[in-house]
Amino acid sequence: MRAVSSSWVWFVEKVMAPVSRIGLSGLAVMGQNLALNIAEKGFPISVYNRTTSKVDETVERAKQEGNLPLYGFHDPESFVNSIQKPRVIIMLVKAGAPVDQTIKTLSGYLEKGDCIIDGGNEWYENTERREKAMAELGLLYLGMGVSGGEEGARHGPSLMPGGSFEAYKYIEDILLKVAAQVPDSGPCVTYIGKGGSGNFVKMVHNGIEYGDMQLIAEAYDVLKSVGKLSNEELRNVFSEWNKGELLSFLIEITADIFSIKDDKGDGFLVDKVLDKTGMKGTGKWTVQQAADLSVAAPTIASSLDARFLSGLKEERVEAAKVFKSSGFENVLSDQTVDKKKLIDDVRQALYASKICSYAQGMNLIRAKSIEKGWDLKLGELARIWKGGCIIRAIFLDRIKKAYDRNADLANLLVDPEFAKEIVERQSAWRRVVCLAINSGISTPGMSSSLAYFDSYRRDRLPANLVQAQRDYFGAHTYERIDTTGSFHTEWFKIAQQSKI
Amino acid sequence: MRAVSSSWVWFVEKVMAPVSRIGLSGLAVMGQNLALNIAEKGFPISVYNRTTSKVDETVERAKQEGNLPLYGFHDPESFVNSIQKPRVIIMLVKAGAPVDQTIKTLSGYLEKGDCIIDGGNEWYENTERREKAMAELGLLYLGMGVSGGEEGARHGPSLMPGGSFEAYKYIEDILLKVAAQVPDSGPCVTYIGKGGSGNFVKMVHNGIEYGDMQLIAEAYDVLKSVGKLSNEELRNVFSEWNKGELLSFLIEITADIFSIKDDKGDGFLVDKVLDKTGMKGTGKWTVQQAADLSVAAPTIASSLDARFLSGLKEERVEAAKVFKSSGFENVLSDQTVDKKKLIDDVRQALYASKICSYAQGMNLIRAKSIEKGWDLKLGELARIWKGGCIIRAIFLDRIKKAYDRNADLANLLVDPEFAKEIVERQSAWRRVVCLAINSGISTPGMSSSLAYFDSYRRDRLPANLVQAQRDYFGAHTYERIDTTGSFHTEWFKIAQQSKI
Repeated sequence: MRAVSSSWVWFVEKVMAPVSRIGLSGLAVMGQNLALNIAEKGFPISVYNRTTSKVDETVERAKQEGNLPLYGFHDPESFVNSIQKPRVIIMLVKAGAPVDQTIKTLSGYLEKGDCIIDGGNEWYENTERREKAMAELGLLYLGMGVSGGEEGARHGPSLMPGGSFEAYKYIEDILLKVAAQVPDSGPCVTYIGKGGSGNFVKMVHNGIEYGDMQLIAEAYDVLKSVGKLSNEELRNVFSEWNKGELLSFLIEITADIFSIKDDKGDGFLVDKVLDKTGMKGTGKWTVQQAADLSVAAPTIASSLDARFLSGLKEERVEAAKVFKSSGFENVLSDQTVDKKKLIDDVRQALYASKICSYAQGMNLIRAKSIEKGWDLKLGELARIWKGGCIIRAIFLDRIKKAYDRNADLANLLVDPEFAKEIVERQSAWRRVVCLAINSGISTPGMSSSLAYFDSYRRDRLPANLVQAQRDYFGAHTYERIDTTGSFHTEWFKIAQQSKI
Repeated sequence: MRAVSSSWVWFVEKVMAPVSRIGLSGLAVMGQNLALNIAEKGFPISVYNRTTSKVDETVERAKQEGNLPLYGFHDPESFVNSIQKPRVIIMLVKAGAPVDQTIKTLSGYLEKGDCIIDGGNEWYENTERREKAMAELGLLYLGMGVSGGEEGARHGPSLMPGGSFEAYKYIEDILLKVAAQVPDSGPCVTYIGKGGSGNFVKMVHNGIEYGDMQLIAEAYDVLKSVGKLSNEELRNVFSEWNKGELLSFLIEITADIFSIKDDKGDGFLVDKVLDKTGMKGTGKWTVQQAADLSVAAPTIASSLDARFLSGLKEERVEAAKVFKSSGFENVLSDQTVDKKKLIDDVRQALYASKICSYAQGMNLIRAKSIEKGWDLKLGELARIWKGGCIIRAIFLDRIKKAYDRNADLANLLVDPEFAKEIVERQSAWRRVVCLAINSGISTPGMSSSLAYFDSYRRDRLPANLVQAQRDYFGAHTYERIDTTGSFHTEWFKIAQQSKI
């Protein structure tokens, strides 16, 4: 809480009435862009950063981008005092300790009823811990997922605010204007739910993003390595795909990527990029949460594993040599393929796999919602992902409609529309995965998606054998198909008797 | 610490000198069996359980099984006092709170230099926390993985003790006799390492066990659903397999399972067992730790997912109906197969997948060992798993030899022997996975193992595209194949220019 007012503070408060509707602290590129976006939408904003050069940089950009109503402050006290009460401050700093540090700095000047919003990729439990601590000071708190990268932040991100509903309502008018706008479905923001739900939903969004990127990489791999498509052909394929059911930001930028020449040498830049993928933690958390919640999410998990394996570049180069010298040959590497048919098959395999990936992500969110009592609306989440964010896609409208048809849908796979689409694509899907397998190309995302589908739609799995084994060696008991109750059999003894 | 001696305690201590070499608290079946095993090996043992009827039950069993030197106590104080100093007490109670409760009860009577051993499936960090707390009281602590189920505990388990080396040395003579004995490679016990390493290694052992069970279930599924093998044929196949490279406890009990008739009706019991697999947490932890340590473990993860999906029995029954009515048909369900060839292919696919699964588990252990400075010896772990435990198999001897050849082996896959075996089996492996895919049978363990292999042995993966995407939308930078350093490209701007 703020100390007793000094005469200077009195001057600032009474004579220079606070002019800003909102504040933003943390002026790396994402923070700068979001602040400029808010100012551009007509909401005067104060900005602050510990390294003050970033403040001046942002102020300069606000001038250059049209004299936007953005005010820079070099000290936290005057920054806080420049904001209208109840004050709302968005933080865009690194998750973890920097967030705690920023809260500590700011909350010293805040008053009861003021609110802090964390716009970073924070672990949801940290948000819940902070919301509790803030409440004890009479302050409100929101954990708000912000997706769309730098461009999204500047021109319209997808926003996933969770936490205090009161605080959300107070800034709803700002968020509705700042968020991406999608024709026919409105601004890409909604109140997600209580506690850390905003962060959790953003985390799963990122997990789904991992899955989408991996599936696209596999499509690229099959088309390039088996279909022998050139970068020009790949660009055309992805541009074409971006006109249909796969229309999405990630497909669009993939087409762009294949068009860019290397400015350091011959050929295309994509071929010069090292095959090592970085990561920042949300994909890992998604996989760990899936395990915690007993939700199968193999497509997302395989995309995380693919990143791990990509990181072992040196080991892979060595392994390739070992297998070459051990006589390894790709079984069908010289097979001739019908390019047109292959492209069409891969498109279908990608789409069908994508349905499985989103089914996993949505079920993960639902499982957490039930555990935490968040009451999340899956269709509404699909709606706010339609624009602004990295996974934005026309496909999300189909998901929204599936949940509109049936909010309690057990799994996207059994929505009648999606079921029909999968059935239509399953032959192509199986062909692509088998072609890849026979060519020595791994498609872990597509094949784990297919295994997910083939497991989920089977009324009888071989899990009976696993449970029989568990009862055999650990007396874990089993259920029966023909009656209720829990049974144990002395498998060993009976088997011994039958051997005599 | 113990309170001042009462005259009764004085009497017990001075007149009735402690007779037991060791104590065991927690007399569910595992605890009873381990206590009887210790007594049978000639080490007098005291036993205690909160529910005292279990004590009497154990004493009775000790009498019946040959007047073994086992002494039961109904109260913790006389139990503790009956053990020679420095006292060692093994706990076999449920992980978590019951362990803390038991420690609290026992430590009140223990003296400096005494030791408690947790023989349960405990989360390794709990063991590290307790070891620290115990050290402050001058007490020693071990977290000891015990594998082998009830039978193993009674007749020779695989033991994975980690924590205080001093405590280990004091009871080494007992553990060496109690553990399973394997000709040519000795007792299945070794000092694992410091801290929670014993629990961690046991956790990964269980994760590998999940993988083995899933791979066997998939072999069963392909042979039964595609090959149309009867239970008699399956029993013969698994019995035959148990004579060769797949020789192992789990293959042996699988053969047994197929021999058992249902005593409640017609046919075989395995067909009446519900296809729902339970689990207890160590598989989940393994998958979460793999994500934490950036180690790809898709075979183990897919076996966990398979258990999750098996649990959705009602949803699967509904999904099967939805897809039937959507026109779903198994593409090649009526294909004719050469049974003999199929059986041989499936054996090879199972073996090759198993190599991948163990490679993942071993690399997970190594990653943790490096993180924690445990200095674990992977070959030695393979050795102590050769007998006693659920994953015991002739195969583990091959793993031990691979690490004997090269302790720093980056991955089991690149050991020359294993590489050769995989190359020999890869055609069969690919055939089985494709056959399953085309039959609508999911083989998530085998196909994710194959994808793991095909990713690990490739010097160039499509991860360059993923990294280019990350740099496009998030300015995450990329490396190049032809020079060092970290680069960023304005992909969007350049692509826009090229479109003009």
